[in-house]
Amino acid sequence: MNFKKKEQGKSASKLKAIPLGGLEQIGLNITAFEYEDSIVVVDCGLSFPEDEMLGIDLVIPDITYLKENADKVKGFVITHGHEDHIGALPYVLKELNIPIYATKLTMGIIENKLEEHGLMKTTKRKVVKFGQSINLGQFRIEFIKTNHSIVDAAALAIYSPAGVVVHTGDFKVDYTPVFGDAIDLQRFAEIGKKGVLALMCDSTNAERAGFTPSEKTVGKTLDSLFLEHKDTRILIATFASNVDRVRQIINTAEKFNRKVVVEGRSMVNIIDTASKLGYLQIADRTLIDVEELKNYPPEKTVIITTGSQGESMAALSRMASDNHKKISIMPGDTVIFSAHPIPGNEKAVTNVINELQMKGADVIFQDVHVSGHACQEEIKLIYSLVKPKYAIPVHGEYKHRKAQAKIAAQLGIPKENIFMLQSGDVLEMDDERAVINERVPVGAILVDGLGVGDVGNVVLRDRQHLAEDGIMIVVMALESHSDQLISGPDIVSRGFVYVRESDELLDEARLLVEEAVQDCLDRGKTDWGKLKGTVKDVLSDFVWKKTKRRPMILPIIMEV
Amino acid sequence: MNFKKKEQGKSASKLKAIPLGGLEQIGLNITAFEYEDSIVVVDCGLSFPEDEMLGIDLVIPDITYLKENADKVKGFVITHGHEDHIGALPYVLKELNIPIYATKLTMGIIENKLEEHGLMKTTKRKVVKFGQSINLGQFRIEFIKTNHSIVDAAALAIYSPAGVVVHTGDFKVDYTPVFGDAIDLQRFAEIGKKGVLALMCDSTNAERAGFTPSEKTVGKTLDSLFLEHKDTRILIATFASNVDRVRQIINTAEKFNRKVVVEGRSMVNIIDTASKLGYLQIADRTLIDVEELKNYPPEKTVIITTGSQGESMAALSRMASDNHKKISIMPGDTVIFSAHPIPGNEKAVTNVINELQMKGADVIFQDVHVSGHACQEEIKLIYSLVKPKYAIPVHGEYKHRKAQAKIAAQLGIPKENIFMLQSGDVLEMDDERAVINERVPVGAILVDGLGVGDVGNVVLRDRQHLAEDGIMIVVMALESHSDQLISGPDIVSRGFVYVRESDELLDEARLLVEEAVQDCLDRGKTDWGKLKGTVKDVLSDFVWKKTKRRPMILPIIMEV
Repeated sequence: MNFKKKEQGKSASKLKAIPLGGLEQIGLNITAFEYEDSIVVVDCGLSFPEDEMLGIDLVIPDITYLKENADKVKGFVITHGHEDHIGALPYVLKELNIPIYATKLTMGIIENKLEEHGLMKTTKRKVVKFGQSINLGQFRIEFIKTNHSIVDAAALAIYSPAGVVVHTGDFKVDYTPVFGDAIDLQRFAEIGKKGVLALMCDSTNAERAGFTPSEKTVGKTLDSLFLEHKDTRILIATFASNVDRVRQIINTAEKFNRKVVVEGRSMVNIIDTASKLGYLQIADRTLIDVEELKNYPPEKTVIITTGSQGESMAALSRMASDNHKKISIMPGDTVIFSAHPIPGNEKAVTNVINELQMKGADVIFQDVHVSGHACQEEIKLIYSLVKPKYAIPVHGEYKHRKAQAKIAAQLGIPKENIFMLQSGDVLEMDDERAVINERVPVGAILVDGLGVGDVGNVVLRDRQHLAEDGIMIVVMALESHSDQLISGPDIVSRGFVYVRESDELLDEARLLVEEAVQDCLDRGKTDWGKLKGTVKDVLSDFVWKKTKRRPMILPIIMEV
Repeated sequence: MNFKKKEQGKSASKLKAIPLGGLEQIGLNITAFEYEDSIVVVDCGLSFPEDEMLGIDLVIPDITYLKENADKVKGFVITHGHEDHIGALPYVLKELNIPIYATKLTMGIIENKLEEHGLMKTTKRKVVKFGQSINLGQFRIEFIKTNHSIVDAAALAIYSPAGVVVHTGDFKVDYTPVFGDAIDLQRFAEIGKKGVLALMCDSTNAERAGFTPSEKTVGKTLDSLFLEHKDTRILIATFASNVDRVRQIINTAEKFNRKVVVEGRSMVNIIDTASKLGYLQIADRTLIDVEELKNYPPEKTVIITTGSQGESMAALSRMASDNHKKISIMPGDTVIFSAHPIPGNEKAVTNVINELQMKGADVIFQDVHVSGHACQEEIKLIYSLVKPKYAIPVHGEYKHRKAQAKIAAQLGIPKENIFMLQSGDVLEMDDERAVINERVPVGAILVDGLGVGDVGNVVLRDRQHLAEDGIMIVVMALESHSDQLISGPDIVSRGFVYVRESDELLDEARLLVEEAVQDCLDRGKTDWGKLKGTVKDVLSDFVWKKTKRRPMILPIIMEV
């Protein structure tokens, strides 16, 4: 047995850690661990499209490497139920049917997705408890309790004959969590004491000094805000998946004898799942339906809602812009943002705040949130308990991971043992050394509607071009034998100028193009490619000179 | 004389304050003041396009009201030289040729613009000194020294027979400015003592408690950063127009015997103008050309550069992405961001920081900047000196202005005397009361290339549609008399799917459209509008079913 070899202090092969995504941005987290004939995969997340990915709904990782080694892949082990760790599962499972291992709530959230995609019957699933281990090929994976902004988050100890890797997942240290246990620091210490090859630790907050406060501090803040605003209706926006936050809001509401309405589909879904699985007990008398709001005085109600990131389709944004069917903002309402804007969402959030204030709401958006990620002192704590030989900062952009690398160095890990990996790097390691000898294919697959991967760089470049200056289409009909112009050229434009007020410009353009086409044709049998090229050149020069714009120019020739 | 009437405590007419922009967003600042036959206009700024304004370069205010009252308009009085206060001048002056009044550096920056637009000869200009007044029709305008993140910023006292309005422009209180005098608080007090009708005060930082620190504190920070990084090259990104900041960087560089290179066209321009006008003295031996960098050891050089907002075309971004012709980032470089990201730019800035770190640079982006705008305590100070009858918060989004309105109320201004105006409101006021009785036309005019106002909602909606899912063009040729289909229908698409891999989908679509067209034509003489409608419906249904996308569908029929 390989485990024996380990006990003898030697293993035949090396352990490979292969991040397939997640090191270049927030999201797209997926890491393969490979030992001889076994592969296990930690997480399978999506990322949200960058600004320049026009029209794209979401982005999933390229799993070519896993498909090429399909017979080795033993399972997905999932750290927690956030989109950037589970969101790509339904897409990936359609290509690679392998079992999923996760804690109870995490699995509940995954199952909602599988149902939506019709994958429940074909997907093998196993719920794992904290402290429990599962054997997957030559690996053993232990789930360790951590704290995060979603309950049931786990760190993973990945045992292989070549050594142990501890992967924290997303985590923070919360000594006084709202529900369930604090992070199992003793277990981290115990595993560390036995010797850990590598630590892969969350870098999200590695630039921030100190400790992330306990989730419980938010409860106290809520209590005092409810006291201060006891004469108004209260609306609170937060992340749908933050069950503990919802629990605290409901607790405070109950203290103040307020009824609670939950608005927003994703929040209703998660609360349903959490309640069903026993993670959230709500007194029957507290939760009411939105239709019942009118039966209570405003100051006896609370509305918990999605939209804390200013998402235009979320419930709060629709209320702010008077597009919500059932709830309108009333002057005097107190609206609390119990979330910080995720980078990139600042402006959208500000727009919603402005709209809410214009409707007369009192908006509170500071200090009603704590992060779910470890700050510098917590990262130091984990390193000091685990004492890994190699440090591999994960979860974060380059600057976050670099900040963690600095911390690791401060704690005495030699620089050559700290790895700033890129997605696709294959880090081979054992007790003696760790080295990157090869790379595997990685990438971002774009999902647009039902299409997975059918929008690539060419299509995106076209969309960007169209978005910038619109399109001018030049159509003409040529007689098939004689190459005589028998109709057109006509110019149709969209997204270029307001056509009704640009007659002159477009007429002039048409004449110019007609002249150029006629000129080409007059010189005898014409290559259509050349004709199209001429039209493009003539029209684009003219338009640039007149407008300093570069619309896409698309000549279409019909043969009649 | 009307001024006499005022002295007798009565004026025949009322003073109108008419913001023509700037109250719905940051930028687009322009406010008309009207008394009988006289109008003066404070500032004439642009704003940068919102995310959904695809392809737009900049936004300028609608000045219909000024054009309709052209004979009344006596001049533009300008508070300072930032784009959001002067950027629309060249566009507006082409429609309305009126004189400009501004302080020396402000005028210098305006003149750079006028030259670019060929407006120097036709535009009357007058440089005004602090403390000086100018008479414009029935108005007298006094320029009062303030502090801001650009030198030569002025507040304006606008004297009319119906009373005085104090307009702060953008300002902060800096008791120890780097250059020139502190804000002239005594003059604010003096004017206030005589009685002020209304205060229009900068709201940008009205949500922030306390005082904005002096610009000088940045100098101290720079000194200690230079000491700490004395063995590396230093690059510092800041706003091109912050002459004081540039001055301080140069001062520190001189203390440490470093040579200074200035990179980025807008920064070079402003430094040129400021030097020419005597606002910036740089020792001959300090400034060197970028070509001379190689003659000095890196640790004896500093590069001051544009790009602090992550703008993709600015010098620093080009260095970070290896697209700068003359300067490359070297491992060990220290890069200091001496600016905070303007809301909306956070992600772009982060991307540049990541790229710089990947190249091995040490990036410092915290606490090397102070704001140019007054925080709450400074706003209270100005209110307490000016003691206006009416409070009109300006410069800021709704939430910022609302925060100032709260401060005004705290200071004892009755709620009915605090005005949360919208652009276009005409606030009529005199000693007795202030009231909004009418509105004038306002709006945002989009500038795209050479086109001013030729891109409106229709064109923008098309660009958004094209950006989201691309376009499908269906062309066909019909025999003009018989209405027989003699060519096509063909489908051409851009920005929809990767065509080479979607043959099947497009073939199927073509057949479907052909069938529908033939079916229409078979039923006899066809209305082309109806035919196009059918094509749109059939194709859009099919595409939605197959892809869940909604490309723009554009049927084009050629008559042959």
